[in-house]
Amino acid sequence: MPFATAIHDRYFEDYIKGEVHTFGSTEVVEAEVIDFARKFDPQDFHTDPDAAARTVFGGLIASGWHTAAMMMRMYADHYLTKVASLASPGLDELRWIMPVRPGDVLSVRVSIVEAVPSRSKPDRGVVTSFIEVLNQRDEVVMSMRAVNMIGRRVPG
Amino acid sequence: MPFATAIHDRYFEDYIKGEVHTFGSTEVVEAEVIDFARKFDPQDFHTDPDAAARTVFGGLIASGWHTAAMMMRMYADHYLTKVASLASPGLDELRWIMPVRPGDVLSVRVSIVEAVPSRSKPDRGVVTSFIEVLNQRDEVVMSMRAVNMIGRRVPG
Repeated sequence: MPFATAIHDRYFEDYIKGEVHTFGSTEVVEAEVIDFARKFDPQDFHTDPDAAARTVFGGLIASGWHTAAMMMRMYADHYLTKVASLASPGLDELRWIMPVRPGDVLSVRVSIVEAVPSRSKPDRGVVTSFIEVLNQRDEVVMSMRAVNMIGRRVPG
Repeated sequence: MPFATAIHDRYFEDYIKGEVHTFGSTEVVEAEVIDFARKFDPQDFHTDPDAAARTVFGGLIASGWHTAAMMMRMYADHYLTKVASLASPGLDELRWIMPVRPGDVLSVRVSIVEAVPSRSKPDRGVVTSFIEVLNQRDEVVMSMRAVNMIGRRVPG
């Protein structure tokens, strides 16, 4: 279901418990998989197609951190408010469920688990989002439960 | 404390519950903070020093995913075996505790929480690591509890 408000006019009040948002389309590109992994996660199965072919994965797979980063780009472009994001204290239960390979096309499904006003700060609320990253076969390749502090349109 | 074995000869048996390993030194570079965020986390406080100065952060801060990626590079270079890493099913309790800023110098402290042989697969074990990322003032800026599957030197 779409948000009632555009991303430049989106506040805590627009994140409604139980709603599910799907968005984004990112192709996983081999050169980018290798580039990311050389910088941040230099394991053979992320950086070297030939060596990767000889592992249990049978070929190159993206670093789990690269998959997370690609998710974040879609989350920032489509879900997270552009005007009231007050950063994130963290996340729980991050799971890398299936390999992500060059040529895969990823998208995101977010289910809003909880949206509650902050007890200590009347200008914001706390939104808990269950995030799933899907591939082109609608298989869930990664999931996590993330928390964002979001500014309120009308402070309490 | 150092590992008994070099990273190219390190197996499940070398990850010992209760041991603490500290390693790495990564300077946070402004141009890299901006580059990462433009690709993966385009929020003003990660991409635009002037706009960031007007936020609660008072200046540019690294994307939490960038901090995680810098951690992973040190983890792969110093901690994770180069010969027996069988990937990770996920992590829990990731916390972004303090802002990470250009000029900060990050390092890693890992405490081995648990190291148990796999029940179903005799060729590997499951290592749970509590990871802390520290800045140059020894402040913990990020922490998480990560799980790695590691091959055994001597299958059970």
